[in-house]
Amino acid sequence: MINVELKDIANLCKRRGFIFQDSEIYGGIGSVWDYGPLGVELKNNVKARWWKSMVYDRDDVEGLDAAILMNPETWKASGHVESFADLLVDCKGCKKRFRIDLLKGKECPECGGELTEPRSFNLMFKTQVGSVEGQTHDVYLRPETAQGIFVNFENILTSSRRKLPFGVAQTGKAFRNEITTGNFTFRSREFEQMELEFFVKPGEDEKWYDYWVNERLRWYISLGIREENLRLREHQQHELAHYAKRCHDIEFLFPMGWSELEGIANRTDYDLKQHAKISGRDLHYFDDATGQRYTPYVIEPSGGVDRAVLAFLVDAYRVETVRERKRVYLSLDKRLAPIKVAVLPLLRNKPEIVEMAHRIRDGIRGDYRVVYDDTASIGRLYRRQDEIGTPYCVTVDVDSLSDGKVTVRDRDTMEQDRIEAARVKDFMTEKLDLS
Amino acid sequence: MINVELKDIANLCKRRGFIFQDSEIYGGIGSVWDYGPLGVELKNNVKARWWKSMVYDRDDVEGLDAAILMNPETWKASGHVESFADLLVDCKGCKKRFRIDLLKGKECPECGGELTEPRSFNLMFKTQVGSVEGQTHDVYLRPETAQGIFVNFENILTSSRRKLPFGVAQTGKAFRNEITTGNFTFRSREFEQMELEFFVKPGEDEKWYDYWVNERLRWYISLGIREENLRLREHQQHELAHYAKRCHDIEFLFPMGWSELEGIANRTDYDLKQHAKISGRDLHYFDDATGQRYTPYVIEPSGGVDRAVLAFLVDAYRVETVRERKRVYLSLDKRLAPIKVAVLPLLRNKPEIVEMAHRIRDGIRGDYRVVYDDTASIGRLYRRQDEIGTPYCVTVDVDSLSDGKVTVRDRDTMEQDRIEAARVKDFMTEKLDLS
Repeated sequence: MINVELKDIANLCKRRGFIFQDSEIYGGIGSVWDYGPLGVELKNNVKARWWKSMVYDRDDVEGLDAAILMNPETWKASGHVESFADLLVDCKGCKKRFRIDLLKGKECPECGGELTEPRSFNLMFKTQVGSVEGQTHDVYLRPETAQGIFVNFENILTSSRRKLPFGVAQTGKAFRNEITTGNFTFRSREFEQMELEFFVKPGEDEKWYDYWVNERLRWYISLGIREENLRLREHQQHELAHYAKRCHDIEFLFPMGWSELEGIANRTDYDLKQHAKISGRDLHYFDDATGQRYTPYVIEPSGGVDRAVLAFLVDAYRVETVRERKRVYLSLDKRLAPIKVAVLPLLRNKPEIVEMAHRIRDGIRGDYRVVYDDTASIGRLYRRQDEIGTPYCVTVDVDSLSDGKVTVRDRDTMEQDRIEAARVKDFMTEKLDLS
Repeated sequence: MINVELKDIANLCKRRGFIFQDSEIYGGIGSVWDYGPLGVELKNNVKARWWKSMVYDRDDVEGLDAAILMNPETWKASGHVESFADLLVDCKGCKKRFRIDLLKGKECPECGGELTEPRSFNLMFKTQVGSVEGQTHDVYLRPETAQGIFVNFENILTSSRRKLPFGVAQTGKAFRNEITTGNFTFRSREFEQMELEFFVKPGEDEKWYDYWVNERLRWYISLGIREENLRLREHQQHELAHYAKRCHDIEFLFPMGWSELEGIANRTDYDLKQHAKISGRDLHYFDDATGQRYTPYVIEPSGGVDRAVLAFLVDAYRVETVRERKRVYLSLDKRLAPIKVAVLPLLRNKPEIVEMAHRIRDGIRGDYRVVYDDTASIGRLYRRQDEIGTPYCVTVDVDSLSDGKVTVRDRDTMEQDRIEAARVKDFMTEKLDLS
């Protein structure tokens, strides 16, 4: 069950510094977002956990960071120049434009006017490289990171001496000039993907497909998303992209309803074969063991970083009543929380307390984000940290000066432990367990 | 002293999987590069060390991750629409185009032909957002990340409740349609910046300027760049950008000569005042202590991630003769090395050795990149790891099965320690000291 509306999340995100509208002082730009001081930590933590699970914890995946600008032949080969388009109609009355698949046979919904014949509108952003007249060429901002992996297949294979099955993992920005945007960061024109292309022997693709569907579902659960808010939905034949043999969406129960968080597709050998054809390069894999040459099949778990961040925020959002007051807190997994520990001096005008609190902060910061906050009363400071999901608050009070102990407060249970100040570092290392 | 040419570095980078030409199978795109399996780790490590030193280790900096696409008013306010341009001339003879500042009063260098009057060529890439005719607008790919910080100044100040002095740190892609490119990744059309905008009270700007020049120089040295390969160069008056009061470059002795690695500029209150003027928003800072309102001054250490990566590679490149054979190794700081440990079974056909080696690998991987390699003789495996800068190789041999010990080889000294297999994890934790 999800008990929060998107506007509450958007409001918290702006107020606390998770997510701001891009160039807001100029009225924004339409479905582009900036990650503020807390948002950048949360997003980086999501990407770091993904990278760890995909690259560091495994023995069969290489990483990659390919550029956003690519030779435009890439998008001819991939089919994006031809097919990555929405069918649009214009209303001859009000002059507005609509996606025909969303009109569902209706007339122009606003003015009832007559519609033009549908025209294809490509979703790729285009720009020009080069400065010499007659020698500039059109290039696209990549609409998916996946192609950066396919065009590097040969280079990665050669330099890493990999054998099938193996994968290539990548996170990075992609861009789509969407007609229909909205739902906060859910559908943005600039967004970040985390994609794995896992190359397998043809015939072993179904087995690996099942493996990755389960593995990716497990990943979200392992980072705290409640199982009842996740479901798998298999694409029907008519929904499949031109390159896909099968596709499952991992859907999350967003406030606006079940929506795609990640897609796992069996892309077959489509992309590598297309690139081999258009580039003229040999992109076969030579199988030492059998002496066969073939084009690998590809299983692709493709997640949206922004959607994952939004889902983690939505799922972690909790409201409860404590002593007749409303308490809002984010029950984020400790590994995802933007700030791990807040050190709070109970009296900011008492130099010994301030000094002790600074010493504690200095002792634990460096490996993760620790804040020191003395700008409000302790009740308000706790509420702030609750609302941004900080797992632990360490409070230094007058008694600390005599007994050398501090209060450690747990975000979820609100239980308070009194521990030796000298033990704070070990306590956090043990409790946060960030490895 | 630098004893390596760029082509040797580029060659190693391609062969071992650090850096590939972008969309190479299609002939590339001109000064755009992809980071391969080792390059992405090195680059991420550089960014992580920067983030740690800027955000986690300090108490006066917030992070940010603003979008690449911004409202175009941003670039009018910043002066980029007006001034971010090269003056170009065309040769009427050979039709080629040249930057006038590089011709230095010479005639057309290739054919001696007559030159046209100089014209201004803006370096920003332009694209269009929106799909409705008459409602699309031109937007630019950001040519610097800095403006994302300035337009978010108010949102960050409000949500973080910061007081001056404080900074905002950001890493991210930027794009410039350069006329003159080249020197491998040194000047690319798509590149990544790591920028801090540090906001200070006017009058304290000179003090903080000096602080950041020294601090940034120290950072490169702390990560292993040899002091004799770094120097500071202050910009002369005519070199200063339109917003700058002072600027120092940190230069590195690249193979093509001393070149800029990072610039530290005193941007004064130029940007915030411009954005206040064009947006109509109040971007003053209210100083509680004095009751004054003023526009903060900004000190900006602006580094290139790609240039830093290139400098670390160049500086770490070592060639020596060992037993009459040439040994090439990268003496990268352990915290930057893409792979921290390689586990090598001396005999890949002996199951007990393979099993023991797997166990050791499984015991240490997860927090950083560990590889297992059995695809060549031990001498060749060591050479591979040397050339990619892996600090430690752990070798499992026949004796290991009886005495439970393994050989740990140090990359720089080539010294070999025999240690208990059970101690490998602690050994690495201690030696790598990644915090």
